[in-house]
Amino acid sequence: MQPTTPTTPPSVLSARSLLAKNMICLRQARDWSQERLALEAGLHRTFIAHVERHARNISLDNLEKIARALDVETYSLLLP
Amino acid sequence: MQPTTPTTPPSVLSARSLLAKNMICLRQARDWSQERLALEAGLHRTFIAHVERHARNISLDNLEKIARALDVETYSLLLP
Repeated sequence: MQPTTPTTPPSVLSARSLLAKNMICLRQARDWSQERLALEAGLHRTFIAHVERHARNISLDNLEKIARALDVETYSLLLP
Repeated sequence: MQPTTPTTPPSVLSARSLLAKNMICLRQARDWSQERLALEAGLHRTFIAHVERHARNISLDNLEKIARALDVETYSLLLP
């Protein structure tokens, strides 16, 4: 018998969705609020909130700031 | 004795540098010109040229367009 829950291929998720998922996961693993991540990355709290809601087309430089704040390589934020 | 050539950790390269390196590598592997990549990604040729010179702070949506044109996952463009 086949499992009833279909598996969605990772590539179906947009880059914005992947980023939001990974950011939230890494941020919560550190027990950081959005405010804390914003502070560590030198960005605004509402900017972090927008990125986590897929509402913002973030630039590469800001993606890199978030990665450094979370102490990961930039590409990790976009991993499926 | 220590080896005389120091190895630079990949994380020293900026996200812009990694992107440029990977884009050029993948584009040339397909034998594509900047014009061809621009056409496939729905972007302007000078935009591609600027990204490949690290002169442009590309957005995530445009990064995703380039990845799709090159038929790779978005994160691959930022791999060290």
